Amino acid sequence: MSDLANRVDGVMRRSRAAFETYRTLTGKKRAEFLDAIAAAIEADSALIVSAAMKETNLPEPRLAGERARTCNQLRQFSAMLREGSWVEARIDTALPDRQPLPKPDIRKMLVPIGPVVVFGASNFPMAYSTAGVDTASALAAGCSVVLKGHPAHLETSRMVAALISKAATATGLPADVFIHVEEPGFEIGKALVLHPLTKAVGFTGSFSGGKALYDYAQQRSEPIPVFSEMGSINPVFLLSGALTARPTQIADQYAASITQSVGQFCTNPGLLLSVKGSELEVFKKELAARMQQIAPAPMLHEGISKSFYSKRSEALKQKGVHLIVQASEAQPEGQGVPTLASVSGKDFLANPHLSEEVFGPYSLLVEADNLQELLQIAAQLPGQLTSTLIGEDSDLQGSAALIHVLSDKAGRLIINGVPTGVEVCPSMHHGGPFPATTDSRFSSVGIDAVKRFVRPLSYQAFPEDLLPEELKSSNPLGIWRLYNNEWCK
Amino acid sequence: MSDLANRVDGVMRRSRAAFETYRTLTGKKRAEFLDAIAAAIEADSALIVSAAMKETNLPEPRLAGERARTCNQLRQFSAMLREGSWVEARIDTALPDRQPLPKPDIRKMLVPIGPVVVFGASNFPMAYSTAGVDTASALAAGCSVVLKGHPAHLETSRMVAALISKAATATGLPADVFIHVEEPGFEIGKALVLHPLTKAVGFTGSFSGGKALYDYAQQRSEPIPVFSEMGSINPVFLLSGALTARPTQIADQYAASITQSVGQFCTNPGLLLSVKGSELEVFKKELAARMQQIAPAPMLHEGISKSFYSKRSEALKQKGVHLIVQASEAQPEGQGVPTLASVSGKDFLANPHLSEEVFGPYSLLVEADNLQELLQIAAQLPGQLTSTLIGEDSDLQGSAALIHVLSDKAGRLIINGVPTGVEVCPSMHHGGPFPATTDSRFSSVGIDAVKRFVRPLSYQAFPEDLLPEELKSSNPLGIWRLYNNEWCK
Repeated sequence: MSDLANRVDGVMRRSRAAFETYRTLTGKKRAEFLDAIAAAIEADSALIVSAAMKETNLPEPRLAGERARTCNQLRQFSAMLREGSWVEARIDTALPDRQPLPKPDIRKMLVPIGPVVVFGASNFPMAYSTAGVDTASALAAGCSVVLKGHPAHLETSRMVAALISKAATATGLPADVFIHVEEPGFEIGKALVLHPLTKAVGFTGSFSGGKALYDYAQQRSEPIPVFSEMGSINPVFLLSGALTARPTQIADQYAASITQSVGQFCTNPGLLLSVKGSELEVFKKELAARMQQIAPAPMLHEGISKSFYSKRSEALKQKGVHLIVQASEAQPEGQGVPTLASVSGKDFLANPHLSEEVFGPYSLLVEADNLQELLQIAAQLPGQLTSTLIGEDSDLQGSAALIHVLSDKAGRLIINGVPTGVEVCPSMHHGGPFPATTDSRFSSVGIDAVKRFVRPLSYQAFPEDLLPEELKSSNPLGIWRLYNNEWCK
Repeated sequence: MSDLANRVDGVMRRSRAAFETYRTLTGKKRAEFLDAIAAAIEADSALIVSAAMKETNLPEPRLAGERARTCNQLRQFSAMLREGSWVEARIDTALPDRQPLPKPDIRKMLVPIGPVVVFGASNFPMAYSTAGVDTASALAAGCSVVLKGHPAHLETSRMVAALISKAATATGLPADVFIHVEEPGFEIGKALVLHPLTKAVGFTGSFSGGKALYDYAQQRSEPIPVFSEMGSINPVFLLSGALTARPTQIADQYAASITQSVGQFCTNPGLLLSVKGSELEVFKKELAARMQQIAPAPMLHEGISKSFYSKRSEALKQKGVHLIVQASEAQPEGQGVPTLASVSGKDFLANPHLSEEVFGPYSLLVEADNLQELLQIAAQLPGQLTSTLIGEDSDLQGSAALIHVLSDKAGRLIINGVPTGVEVCPSMHHGGPFPATTDSRFSSVGIDAVKRFVRPLSYQAFPEDLLPEELKSSNPLGIWRLYNNEWCK
């Protein structure tokens, strides 16, 4: 075994050993752990935010908000664990006299699947990284976590990891329930995904990175689930009534959404679509004027800004693509220049490259000939995290066909809002058909994110004292259960 | 395009077109369809059972039972659709005054993923084939289905397919919501899995077949979920108290379970494990005597019996494996001879081939040196559909460690029963860690099987009249929903 393979083997064995203890603990105990992590992050908030500011170029308010979101997520999972119904308990009691065969007592609930490898995300040093939603949901599920710190904010990751370890010790858990891996490079990630003790993977980042991890996991002798959230261009359909009624308001909204956090959100609106005409011309000018005013700002790191300029340049070179506005002629090193371009519906339909993400403050406006072409474009789009309609009531009443098409393309449909700003709540689905993610059936935001790391287990004819608390007839946890086909506590 | 590719392309386009209509229909309409299929199968029961008898060698009572199970499954899904809560509706209402940012109204529910390709299973000509649980759950989800009829019972499949089509027409659905593909051979299956319009695959059969389909699906440019249920040896741990107290009863139970339907169940107990000693010797004799009495019987088809003898012969050749009993010296053509063999714990631990399934009336008895070795064997087992403990109360009280290990190995744990006989009810999990299935998180039996073919979709800030019925504030369907974090109707 190579040195690296040896180290990874050691890490995964420790993680597995911790899992064996951790998976036997009650939901209440896991909730204490998550709460302790949140409290520790809050206590060290200033230090963490300041470390993240140095590493990521993100401004203090943005990071303070992200810190609050991270703690909020942890607490939503701990509340879920305390309430307890999330295990989807189903109970069917015995019918010993049934003909022709007696029916046995069967009970089912969700159980954790094993050690989970999580990759920190470059664009969210807290909320999608070390103590972020992948870690929080895996720990809530009862899985141990091996976290590969993102090299772009390793000091922040290290600080948060130390707090998680302290919280584990304080809660009386095995220390290895969370292991932080700091080693840089691609090989370590690959080795973690390929290790036989790894049972699932969480990743947020580029298509190439997320798809590579997915492919490694499928080539194992035991394939495992990989939840890669890989980006999206989040199409926004601007309908004519709305463009006529409120071009300024929409331009304000979208200039802000396209450039928020220098466009470094997976829900950034990278594609605007509308039918050409005088109202679109007005809106285009309004939007261009606003984007022109927004100064270039530092991106997360050198790699991201290089990739932004290279993909932007590639996009602008495509047939029929016209630059409408860029906030600055210069491309200041490490900074993202807000950019808006346009293309005809026909040229867009003919060129699949125009559906590729340009990660940063870039948006392409597609000017369709008519509503029919707009519908045709919608039907041809690859899978998305979100899709948005901007319309007056009259626009929306005539949009049944468009909504029908988009409801098969995206994980979240939005009316008269912006896709950026992913609310953390049970009704949020953050996911979507491939290539937005590798598995459209699961969310990486909200308490349902826990479902990625559990599987059902049935207990047949178990005596009451050997059943988990969740399945005992007396329902000592007072959770909602499907009991002989009726929902009850 | 080759002829075959052309035909598959035509089939998948028709299926997709039907899906576009079918996915807009209400749960009630889908329920009518499933009920109509069940009623049609019942009306033609005698004809179907008689066709299946000719094709499969299965006896009339077994097929009559399977026919009843098939209709029961269809009706459980229609009841689920009529009740409606299965869509997992979550609603979080707006907080327009929230600081620092207003919270939008978000609502989420499960929606169908698209056309599903289902492969008929050789060992269940009805319940896991044409109108079986994969088809029923996909249709319940709102997906269209392309069914590849199993060549071993194509006439039965054709009859049931005709009834489904009749039911579709009678319910006013597009005829192509269900398409029956009769073409034999491996290439057609591969082409169906690889077609870009296919969104998921259901399969029950051999490891080699199921894994091949899985691999094709992962190599597509858009990977899709494949639910292959691929077999299992269903370990049964015989504890000493039980062997002492009731050797005859257990021998009766297991002689029947091992040979039921000529061992052609995926839950067949292919592995018995116990600690050696005098009580095991007594049990072994009892079991052998009973199995000796059970005459060889015709297997499903020539291919299955050939495979049984070749795998049995391979297993019996392994180091340390001793034949205890076979019901007949002869290996009558096409028939399965009930066979029991034994091996020491040490030889079993050293040889992974002994954990491979011998599909048919065969079971291997592992004689461990002590409880510790039994535990070591349990820990080394590959993933299973089921695992069983046979024990007195005193045995079970001392089995916490064994139950702990097995709860990470199997989809269903059974106490003092047999693994054969898969009850159709919400608490049943029929699935298990790889290699039992390709995705341990989903069941292929019970109403939760529908979850394989749906994904969540969030609606943000939708006006009431554009929301699906399931998500309207007025809750016109009266379903259970998580509404601002509270379960209510």
